[in-house]
Amino acid sequence: MKKKLNVGMVGYGFMGRTHSNAFRQASRFFDLPYEPVLKTVCARNAERANAFAEQWGYESAVTDWRSLVASPELDLIDIESPNDTHAEIAIAAAQAGKMVMCEKPLGRNAAESMAMVEAVERAKVANMVWYNYRRVPAVTLAKQLIDEGRLGRIFHYRAKFLQDWTISSDLPQGGEGLWRLDAKVAGSGVTGDLLAHAIDTAMWLNGGIDEVSAVTATFIKNRKHTLSGAVEPVTIDDASLFLARFANESLATFEATRYARGHKALYTLEINGENASIMWDLHDLHRLQYFDHGDESHLRGWRNLHITDREHPYMSHWWVPGLQIGYEHTFTHQAADFLTAAAEGKIASPTFREALRTDDVTDAVLESAATREWVQVAKR
Amino acid sequence: MKKKLNVGMVGYGFMGRTHSNAFRQASRFFDLPYEPVLKTVCARNAERANAFAEQWGYESAVTDWRSLVASPELDLIDIESPNDTHAEIAIAAAQAGKMVMCEKPLGRNAAESMAMVEAVERAKVANMVWYNYRRVPAVTLAKQLIDEGRLGRIFHYRAKFLQDWTISSDLPQGGEGLWRLDAKVAGSGVTGDLLAHAIDTAMWLNGGIDEVSAVTATFIKNRKHTLSGAVEPVTIDDASLFLARFANESLATFEATRYARGHKALYTLEINGENASIMWDLHDLHRLQYFDHGDESHLRGWRNLHITDREHPYMSHWWVPGLQIGYEHTFTHQAADFLTAAAEGKIASPTFREALRTDDVTDAVLESAATREWVQVAKR
Amino acid sequence: MKKKLNVGMVGYGFMGRTHSNAFRQASRFFDLPYEPVLKTVCARNAERANAFAEQWGYESAVTDWRSLVASPELDLIDIESPNDTHAEIAIAAAQAGKMVMCEKPLGRNAAESMAMVEAVERAKVANMVWYNYRRVPAVTLAKQLIDEGRLGRIFHYRAKFLQDWTISSDLPQGGEGLWRLDAKVAGSGVTGDLLAHAIDTAMWLNGGIDEVSAVTATFIKNRKHTLSGAVEPVTIDDASLFLARFANESLATFEATRYARGHKALYTLEINGENASIMWDLHDLHRLQYFDHGDESHLRGWRNLHITDREHPYMSHWWVPGLQIGYEHTFTHQAADFLTAAAEGKIASPTFREALRTDDVTDAVLESAATREWVQVAKR
Amino acid sequence: MKKKLNVGMVGYGFMGRTHSNAFRQASRFFDLPYEPVLKTVCARNAERANAFAEQWGYESAVTDWRSLVASPELDLIDIESPNDTHAEIAIAAAQAGKMVMCEKPLGRNAAESMAMVEAVERAKVANMVWYNYRRVPAVTLAKQLIDEGRLGRIFHYRAKFLQDWTISSDLPQGGEGLWRLDAKVAGSGVTGDLLAHAIDTAMWLNGGIDEVSAVTATFIKNRKHTLSGAVEPVTIDDASLFLARFANESLATFEATRYARGHKALYTLEINGENASIMWDLHDLHRLQYFDHGDESHLRGWRNLHITDREHPYMSHWWVPGLQIGYEHTFTHQAADFLTAAAEGKIASPTFREALRTDDVTDAVLESAATREWVQVAKR
Repeated sequence: MKKKLNVGMVGYGFMGRTHSNAFRQASRFFDLPYEPVLKTVCARNAERANAFAEQWGYESAVTDWRSLVASPELDLIDIESPNDTHAEIAIAAAQAGKMVMCEKPLGRNAAESMAMVEAVERAKVANMVWYNYRRVPAVTLAKQLIDEGRLGRIFHYRAKFLQDWTISSDLPQGGEGLWRLDAKVAGSGVTGDLLAHAIDTAMWLNGGIDEVSAVTATFIKNRKHTLSGAVEPVTIDDASLFLARFANESLATFEATRYARGHKALYTLEINGENASIMWDLHDLHRLQYFDHGDESHLRGWRNLHITDREHPYMSHWWVPGLQIGYEHTFTHQAADFLTAAAEGKIASPTFREALRTDDVTDAVLESAATREWVQVAKR
Repeated sequence: MKKKLNVGMVGYGFMGRTHSNAFRQASRFFDLPYEPVLKTVCARNAERANAFAEQWGYESAVTDWRSLVASPELDLIDIESPNDTHAEIAIAAAQAGKMVMCEKPLGRNAAESMAMVEAVERAKVANMVWYNYRRVPAVTLAKQLIDEGRLGRIFHYRAKFLQDWTISSDLPQGGEGLWRLDAKVAGSGVTGDLLAHAIDTAMWLNGGIDEVSAVTATFIKNRKHTLSGAVEPVTIDDASLFLARFANESLATFEATRYARGHKALYTLEINGENASIMWDLHDLHRLQYFDHGDESHLRGWRNLHITDREHPYMSHWWVPGLQIGYEHTFTHQAADFLTAAAEGKIASPTFREALRTDDVTDAVLESAATREWVQVAKR
Repeated sequence: MKKKLNVGMVGYGFMGRTHSNAFRQASRFFDLPYEPVLKTVCARNAERANAFAEQWGYESAVTDWRSLVASPELDLIDIESPNDTHAEIAIAAAQAGKMVMCEKPLGRNAAESMAMVEAVERAKVANMVWYNYRRVPAVTLAKQLIDEGRLGRIFHYRAKFLQDWTISSDLPQGGEGLWRLDAKVAGSGVTGDLLAHAIDTAMWLNGGIDEVSAVTATFIKNRKHTLSGAVEPVTIDDASLFLARFANESLATFEATRYARGHKALYTLEINGENASIMWDLHDLHRLQYFDHGDESHLRGWRNLHITDREHPYMSHWWVPGLQIGYEHTFTHQAADFLTAAAEGKIASPTFREALRTDDVTDAVLESAATREWVQVAKR
Repeated sequence: MKKKLNVGMVGYGFMGRTHSNAFRQASRFFDLPYEPVLKTVCARNAERANAFAEQWGYESAVTDWRSLVASPELDLIDIESPNDTHAEIAIAAAQAGKMVMCEKPLGRNAAESMAMVEAVERAKVANMVWYNYRRVPAVTLAKQLIDEGRLGRIFHYRAKFLQDWTISSDLPQGGEGLWRLDAKVAGSGVTGDLLAHAIDTAMWLNGGIDEVSAVTATFIKNRKHTLSGAVEPVTIDDASLFLARFANESLATFEATRYARGHKALYTLEINGENASIMWDLHDLHRLQYFDHGDESHLRGWRNLHITDREHPYMSHWWVPGLQIGYEHTFTHQAADFLTAAAEGKIASPTFREALRTDDVTDAVLESAATREWVQVAKR
């Protein structure tokens, strides 16, 4: 009989669904040391909390996260409420001795994140941030290929995260479901929301970023605020682009925007090495493009890998070759890895401390955009 | 509180996993009239049955399907054991007044299927066959577009289902996991396993097939049998190709093989109409290619639709635009549709009777390959 | 100073342009033993013949092909007039001791072609048929890979040639530019026009075809004839599909149609071998898809080869890697190969005799469609 | 009888071939007011000049460009010798009253280019720079769509020009065929060679660039020089990346490199507007990706346009729908446009003055890379 691990979740939105599903699915498709139990969900609105609990099979619902953190029966607090609540809840949960998982970005800025890192490290509790794209099997395979040295010296990295859902000037900002458009709540716009993903993956694959030169834009300057009802200045960055130099001297372009018509969630990455190159995009997440210069010269070409074989990362847990998985599986993989590591007292990446490094870069990006200077990323 | 619907499942293999997952996920992502309960699983091997029950959360496991069918607490019998067991179990389940779901193909041939149809119709029980590809959102959208008349008169249909997993002559045949290579158990080779899917979708999209001219091949003539240990003649068709004329006078090519190096499960379909055309393939199941001749002449091109929007079939139940689903979701959709229809006393397609039509075509294909004549498909 | 080779051309249409361009370009991009000279063009309409001569730099124009054939200054007669004129002109040219090149298909049927073969063989004149797709560099590379044994035993061949330009019922048939819709002139519809290409390439790559089962359709039964002005029955096949068994026991589907909405000239071929597979399509003729099962198992994928490197067939004559060539270059390659071979007294494929084999297959296809039987292809 | 226009060409390398071919083909495929005559080619090496003249049909060859410029029988001087020779020759040709065409970039820097602009404007001679990619039919169509306002407000522009031919450290620099690796001759590395193309197209499509922030790299610091035989510091930029703000407030990333393994000549551009978006890449130059937000919401997708129809720019001069053209055709289009405009006393873009604007941007890019500051592009 497996040990149960009781989960308390803060938040019930899009990420509440992905995380709840991840815990439910992980124990069916992976052989885990823990049986996670969806114990309690917390949301400010009691009706919504109850409905979510029923839909997802939580045993109870509460409206005050403090009671969740204080509950002796919970082992793990998982946070997916808006960004401005992450730090307070995570620090309290760590102080209460709970394992803590937190949706990305960790804090609204590196200072907030640093306090969270200190709290979990002081409390010595297992901790992790949901940078889920590391666990797309194709991306995990890319990491393996790089770690094996197949690419050789890296010259270039490119990442984009392109969306188009805020182009209409009629879209309001703030409040329920639109807090990502309010910098007070979100910390920033696409820099923290989209670039953070691209930066996390990039540093995982290609090492630290030394310096950046950035530019941001807010294309639509004023929008109606859903809470005040008034037309107010837009406080977030709609687009954020930067040049980067990595510690390994490779050069990079990064770009995120919500004004790229025709792209819904086109997160792409490309990495060019001396001997091989890789490309991946989220719109076909089950594929990896791989070019190996070692192939015979007249038969060299980009190999379109369909990442559905048993030899591919995570895929032996799913179906048979040729049958693809989807977006939510990345969270399931992360939950499985976290539970496995936690049972063994090991670290599952990315920890709060690793995620802090991404906030260091996004801070540098925002500073560079403000000062129009190249900015050195903080060394920790 | 939702009414519970107790499920008894026969089988524990690949399809046991897809079906179990479907029932578990359907009630989380869809608002269903029934709460399906994974009650009992049946497998001949007690150890495997127990392990499966624990992994998937079944309350109990049995080794005799007769006890399952006889159990008064079960509402639905779901069959995914090897093909040669479908008829006996389904007929007994119907006679016991249970709802019956059955993995495809329905029987090993149309005669066997006809008996199953008669049983469920006589018993007036809800019934369905798991032709899951109808519920790939992209395929469901194709059906909508055709039903709306957007393609106009149909001229051509093309379908292929290409695999490469049996090319090695070292692969044995028969027994655990390899019964699909044994015609006594499976009924036929790729004709019933792969072409059946292609035929079901084709008739759903394009209406009945009138006549076929077919050829089959068994490329590797002898293989070691896992049960007897002896090298025995291979009894199945490794490849099956046919020309078809539909009732609407459109012409078609169909092909299935397990000897197409480089293709794992490449089920593709194409349909060319007077005004528009459609292409889809399983290796990128979340996409649909659509060509609309009504577009301005210099801007006509195949539209690459990323079927992840709320407006797309089933997709409002999942994530946000740009985030794809995977293979298993097609079963979840089917379970959700079946449970919804069953609660309302409605029919969810494909019923046993609809699935029988596919067996009529596969019978005609096998007969044509044997006689080298054009064969008329049976009219029912 | 290179020896001049004087060309007389019969025809001035689409193929007149591709052939004239081929001779002009061949001597610029290839180091040829002959300098081809565009001497005389022949067309029934004097005005058009003169205009064509001026546009393409022919020294003179005539209206009677007999004078062309009789001209002592001409070395080579190149025929691209309508199909019903091929045999008479080619036979006369051979009898006059000229080299003869002929646009495909050779004759309107194999009997007509056989007479042409006999004429050129009796006269011992260099001869060739413009099956230009063999000399798409990607297709030539495919041939090399197959000849090197890289694919191993071949199991499957697939070819399609899909167009959509005759779907409108308002399109007339026959006469200037539309003689391909008149069976008396063209011999057949898509069978001779499109399938002939697919068959020529297929037998070049995969050897002889033993038997076929075919079906054809004429979707629009009556069209106005441009010559008579009257609505007349359509005599050609609009679509032609067949199953084939090659001498090497591989199985194939072939299809050609002018009713595939969305496809302009989508000639595709696929070949699946034990060890490797190949795909190519004319809409991106500078690419070849190649799958090598010998790649490491987790890094196997279809390689998308951009056939623009110096190592690729013919490409050292053009630009630099990454820069593609177009459709007309295939004719230039063929002209260069013919002139080189002719100077050396060697054979350049496909000769009239090789092209006859394609007509044997198209004859069998048409017979099978008429009799609804499998038909054996004539053995020569 | 058409007026002849006598061409003198300086240079015999890769671009000598593309230009010679362009003049030869333009009069066959376009109805031109002038018949261009390949009169004289000039190269420093007499043997090579003669060989080139014979291969391409020039009437004579010379080794001193001054004699070419002085020749009274020449109407047009076309320059494709190394970059460090452009200014002197072009200015002398203009002073001699010749039409002048010049391969890009115009000068090695804007100051050099400005002198050339002044010379042709003072002499009032027709002039043009071979930024050939504007005349890829797909790119020309993109321009039309933008000019028609179909994209609406532009938010983003992205361009890359990726190659991989200099990754090997064994590759020497300088001298015959490798002068592009020598900054004294070329002016700069990829900035002038590759980014110049991307900048020319970008400003043509999206208007002027106001400011840039750039970074460059020289990955391999020393290479053997082919002329001196000694290992010498590499003086060019191997990679050049920049952020840009256009006058219309759209934001952009530009990148060029010769260290992107797997890419031979991957020039790509993307442009995102409020209502529509466009993507194009040189590796499939006959295609244009177009997304129209005005399509029905559930049928919106990137349209893959095969730019081979008569309605597409320049394509009525070539073959039939579905049959692609290649790289060199862009030069043919440019030659045809130049000759047509010159005969009518009209301007054919890009003139020397337009091309100067690109040099203003590349100067700003190089300055920004050196100073690590945002640099304003010179206003003229």
